[in-house]
Amino acid sequence: MSLVSQLMDALQIMPGVGPKSAQRLAFFLLQKDRSGARHLASILNQALDQVKECQQCRTLTEHNVCALCSNDQRSWRQLCVVESPADIIQIEQATDYKGRYFVLHGKLSPLDGMGPSELKLNQLIDILAKPECQELIVATGSTVEGETTAQYLAGLAEKGGIKASRLAHGVPLGGDLEYIDNNTLAHAFAGRTHY
Amino acid sequence: MSLVSQLMDALQIMPGVGPKSAQRLAFFLLQKDRSGARHLASILNQALDQVKECQQCRTLTEHNVCALCSNDQRSWRQLCVVESPADIIQIEQATDYKGRYFVLHGKLSPLDGMGPSELKLNQLIDILAKPECQELIVATGSTVEGETTAQYLAGLAEKGGIKASRLAHGVPLGGDLEYIDNNTLAHAFAGRTHY
Ligand SMILES: [Zn+2]
Ligand SMILES: [Zn+2]
Repeated sequence: MSLVSQLMDALQIMPGVGPKSAQRLAFFLLQKDRSGARHLASILNQALDQVKECQQCRTLTEHNVCALCSNDQRSWRQLCVVESPADIIQIEQATDYKGRYFVLHGKLSPLDGMGPSELKLNQLIDILAKPECQELIVATGSTVEGETTAQYLAGLAEKGGIKASRLAHGVPLGGDLEYIDNNTLAHAFAGRTHY
Repeated sequence: MSLVSQLMDALQIMPGVGPKSAQRLAFFLLQKDRSGARHLASILNQALDQVKECQQCRTLTEHNVCALCSNDQRSWRQLCVVESPADIIQIEQATDYKGRYFVLHGKLSPLDGMGPSELKLNQLIDILAKPECQELIVATGSTVEGETTAQYLAGLAEKGGIKASRLAHGVPLGGDLEYIDNNTLAHAFAGRTHY
C-alpha cells in the first residue's frame, strides 16, 4: 500500500474521521502545511513519550505532578472529582474554582467490570483522609454510570465525615460533561446541590 | 506550555479542527489509542520524508513514478487533467477510466497570479505532443477558475490537434470535485461533453 494510503488509514483511528475526511487531511498535511504536519508528528511523538498521569490528581502531564497540583495557591479544602482530564480544562475555563481535582479515568459500571478497585479509588480515599479536606464535589456526568459513581463517591465522603456535593441540575440528562457549554457548566457548578 | 496543550495547538492546523475537537483528539490519542497514535506519528513523518510529486502525472507518491503511471495497461490515448491528487482517487473509484492522468495542483486564476507558467503546463504540453494521445479529458471543477482553466486547456489541446472533452453537467455548479458523490461523478464522467 502506498504511503499516502497508509497515512489515510492511520488518520482514521481518530474519532469522527472517516475515509473521506482522512483523504482530505492527508492531502492537506502533505501539500498545504508540511511544516505544520512535521511539527504535529514531532509533538505527538514527544507527548506519547513523556505524557503520563499526574501522581496526585491523575490528569495527563509530562511532569510527575501537574501544574494544578503543584500550585500551592489551590486549596485542599475542596476536592473535585471528574471522569476525565478534559473535564478539568472545562471546569477551569468555566468557573473560578480554586480547589483540587481528582480524575477517575472512567466511571463505575459493574456490568462492564468497572468497580471501585478498577478505578483505583484508594488514592482518592487517601486524599479524603487529609484533615484539610472538607468538601467532595462530584462532577461526573449525568449518565446512569455517572450518577451511580456520584452516589458511591458521596457514600465514601460520608464515611470520611466529609460533605459531598453534586453539580446542580443544568447538566443535560444523559450527557457527558465534555459537550456542555461554559455558561451551563458554570451555572451547574455554582448551584451544585449538597447530599 | 504543557505538552498536552502543545499537542492541542498542533492538531488545530488541520482543516475543520477547532479548539474543542483538538482537545478531544489529543486526549483520544494520549489515552485511548496510544499505539494507533504512535503509528500515525511515524507514518506521517515517513510520508513527509518520502512523498513527492510523480515525475509524470504529478500526483503524490513515494516513488519517482506513481503506480498509475507505472501501469502499462493504462492507455496513453486519453489524458485526464485534474486539479488535485484527491480527484484521481475519486475518478478511479467512480469510473472505469483506463487512461492517464495529469495533476494541475491548482487552477488558472489570473487575479491571484496563477498563470499557465505557475501551473507548469509545459509538462502537460509535452504529453499532449505524444502521438498516442487522442483525447484530453478536462476534469477541473465547475468553479469560475475551474471553467477558465478548462477553456484554456481545451485551447491547448485544439492547437495540438487533440480532441478535448469536459465532464458532463452533473457536476454541481460552483462545486469542487472533491465533494461530489460517486454516482454523480460517474455520470458526469461518462457523459462528458466534447468541445
Ligand atoms: Zn495533578
Ligand atoms: Zn504518476
